Amino acid sequence: MAIVSDALARLRSRAPLVHNITNYVVMNTTANALLAIGASPAMVHAEEEAAEFVRLAQALVVNIGTLSASWLAAMEAAAGAANAAGVPWVLDPVAAGATVFRRSASARLAELRPAAIRANASEILALAGQTGAGKGVDSTDTTEAAREAARSLARRLGTVVAVTGAIDHVTDGSRVASVANGHVMLTRVTGTGCTATALVGAFLGAGLPAFDASVAALASLGVAAEFAAERSSGPGGFETGLRDALYRLDDAALAARARVT
Amino acid sequence: MAIVSDALARLRSRAPLVHNITNYVVMNTTANALLAIGASPAMVHAEEEAAEFVRLAQALVVNIGTLSASWLAAMEAAAGAANAAGVPWVLDPVAAGATVFRRSASARLAELRPAAIRANASEILALAGQTGAGKGVDSTDTTEAAREAARSLARRLGTVVAVTGAIDHVTDGSRVASVANGHVMLTRVTGTGCTATALVGAFLGAGLPAFDASVAALASLGVAAEFAAERSSGPGGFETGLRDALYRLDDAALAARARVT
Amino acid sequence: MAIVSDALARLRSRAPLVHNITNYVVMNTTANALLAIGASPAMVHAEEEAAEFVRLAQALVVNIGTLSASWLAAMEAAAGAANAAGVPWVLDPVAAGATVFRRSASARLAELRPAAIRANASEILALAGQTGAGKGVDSTDTTEAAREAARSLARRLGTVVAVTGAIDHVTDGSRVASVANGHVMLTRVTGTGCTATALVGAFLGAGLPAFDASVAALASLGVAAEFAAERSSGPGGFETGLRDALYRLDDAALAARARVT
Repeated sequence: MAIVSDALARLRSRAPLVHNITNYVVMNTTANALLAIGASPAMVHAEEEAAEFVRLAQALVVNIGTLSASWLAAMEAAAGAANAAGVPWVLDPVAAGATVFRRSASARLAELRPAAIRANASEILALAGQTGAGKGVDSTDTTEAAREAARSLARRLGTVVAVTGAIDHVTDGSRVASVANGHVMLTRVTGTGCTATALVGAFLGAGLPAFDASVAALASLGVAAEFAAERSSGPGGFETGLRDALYRLDDAALAARARVT
Repeated sequence: MAIVSDALARLRSRAPLVHNITNYVVMNTTANALLAIGASPAMVHAEEEAAEFVRLAQALVVNIGTLSASWLAAMEAAAGAANAAGVPWVLDPVAAGATVFRRSASARLAELRPAAIRANASEILALAGQTGAGKGVDSTDTTEAAREAARSLARRLGTVVAVTGAIDHVTDGSRVASVANGHVMLTRVTGTGCTATALVGAFLGAGLPAFDASVAALASLGVAAEFAAERSSGPGGFETGLRDALYRLDDAALAARARVT
Repeated sequence: MAIVSDALARLRSRAPLVHNITNYVVMNTTANALLAIGASPAMVHAEEEAAEFVRLAQALVVNIGTLSASWLAAMEAAAGAANAAGVPWVLDPVAAGATVFRRSASARLAELRPAAIRANASEILALAGQTGAGKGVDSTDTTEAAREAARSLARRLGTVVAVTGAIDHVTDGSRVASVANGHVMLTRVTGTGCTATALVGAFLGAGLPAFDASVAALASLGVAAEFAAERSSGPGGFETGLRDALYRLDDAALAARARVT
């Protein structure tokens, strides 16, 4: 299993416009991660324009972190318009198992044919109808425990599912790729999961198939995190360094450091 | 007056889930501060789920910084559910004196039995029905001027009141502790008051009584700010260093540097 | 064409309260930029209080980045109240040409007599009724191409228009000043255009006329960006350094480095 050899070069030459309907906590973080890696982010959520805007974009990211009813309506409208226009989109079902509202919203969105779903293990288990209550937005399950749930979810929904944690797994229901990059400091910075999802959106926008886009995104984030951890002594410096590392990362460094099997 | 000697160790071993209904400006900042010090933050504000979510948490933080009517309804519902479930919560009445809407909202929330209120001097004076107009979100009064107002407010509401500024005062209506740590650069970074409130939530979630939680939070932030100021030359580097310092702080360093009387 | 020689000193001695109704992505960023340069920011958007709050402020910033219908109503109410109270305000018509909703909203707000409009070239062309679709929030036009549109827009609306890009142009319809400071890294950090607008608000709040305020703001941001670029190796470190540079900038350094013609 290898990363598309010119994934970053393609992303940077296309500089895809990535439309995000995401949560308040990470809007700035994921916009900056998208800019760092070479995409052009826009955050547009109003029901008046979300469906119109997505047709201008090369990919859509839908993230339910700080969900409310009117935002959910815009997400559904934008996902529908994205499908109609052939714009690939990725779903991040944040804290899917935590409340009735989230279980319902994430199940409805997952049925709207996302090209990919990126989530932690508890969220995938919740989406699959198993336990997966998690601890707020954090996982209480290992990605190993969610691997089979991810596979059957991918098969049932006809999508690619990426479960991230200490080791990430990406599956389209038959193939499974594992990415063993990253650093524990990623768990001490808010929104790194959301950033992973946004980067999947960036590689989708660059024209990569969903499976390849997910692997490239998770490997890029993981390798960048390793570079950032070498140069920092806490989560503040780590986050700054992560953006710098995403900006400086190239396909050669990615190929040399990625541990994808 | 001493800080609970294992306050940070307790916080880190429990890693409390802290539910925040807070303002847009600082969501990222306070989530990251909570992660840095060892808590697990979640930001959940929808009326559909806020009351349900708070029962999963160990503490609730309510901050009216960018208030609107629907958010206020969610705050009241969550505070009520927190009280019913025995989950302690802390109120941050941002710019309480600035407008009719804020005076009314902060007064209503203060009556809902928060375990603690953390605010600047102008906000405490406004809550106490004295002047305290402030300058937007910034205080125009000294914490000394608000000390007696804080004391009678704490007594009347049966809560702990923490007034922060150059010197912080924490009172339950009878006892008063003062914390003389911190750095003027805290006034050049947005949301450091909100961060103080979030850290009170973290120590409440760790099981400390409200008075001890408030003292531990303000001393931790103040000492971390001193470390950060030593290593930075402007508000950008200071904020990065503050997160790193919160992450690295331990009970021994806190006891050695804290100036609590 | 020169920068007001004590622009920064005036700003810092007055420390104006700048009321912002701005987008979720940049609230933290622009609040911190305002604090760094010496202003006192507040973010207040509720219809219940926006018009009341603006009367306490020295300037208002209206930015439609993550617009929705209820926020637009608050922006219009606040702009009207600002005009009535003699509080100058600046408009940032983010992605003005991207959707029907944005074209309509930005046109309506532009008619409400802002003291200044700060935008990229595509947004100015869209406001002027020419093409200017842009690419999401990014410009696809040069500031040269928008220079004449800016001039006639300024004349028609009786306002100052600042078009920013590689070279910035500021015009009141007759005079045109150009600012040739800045660094390409500004395009790799989200919200730097929004920061430019917020800084225009800060200098308006310091009492400078709109033309002078716009030139001072763009030169300050541009010079600070040059300092930051010298000391960083990616967009993360650059953003941190930009805040530090805004904090340390003084009138002497500004005069020495600014390239205003």
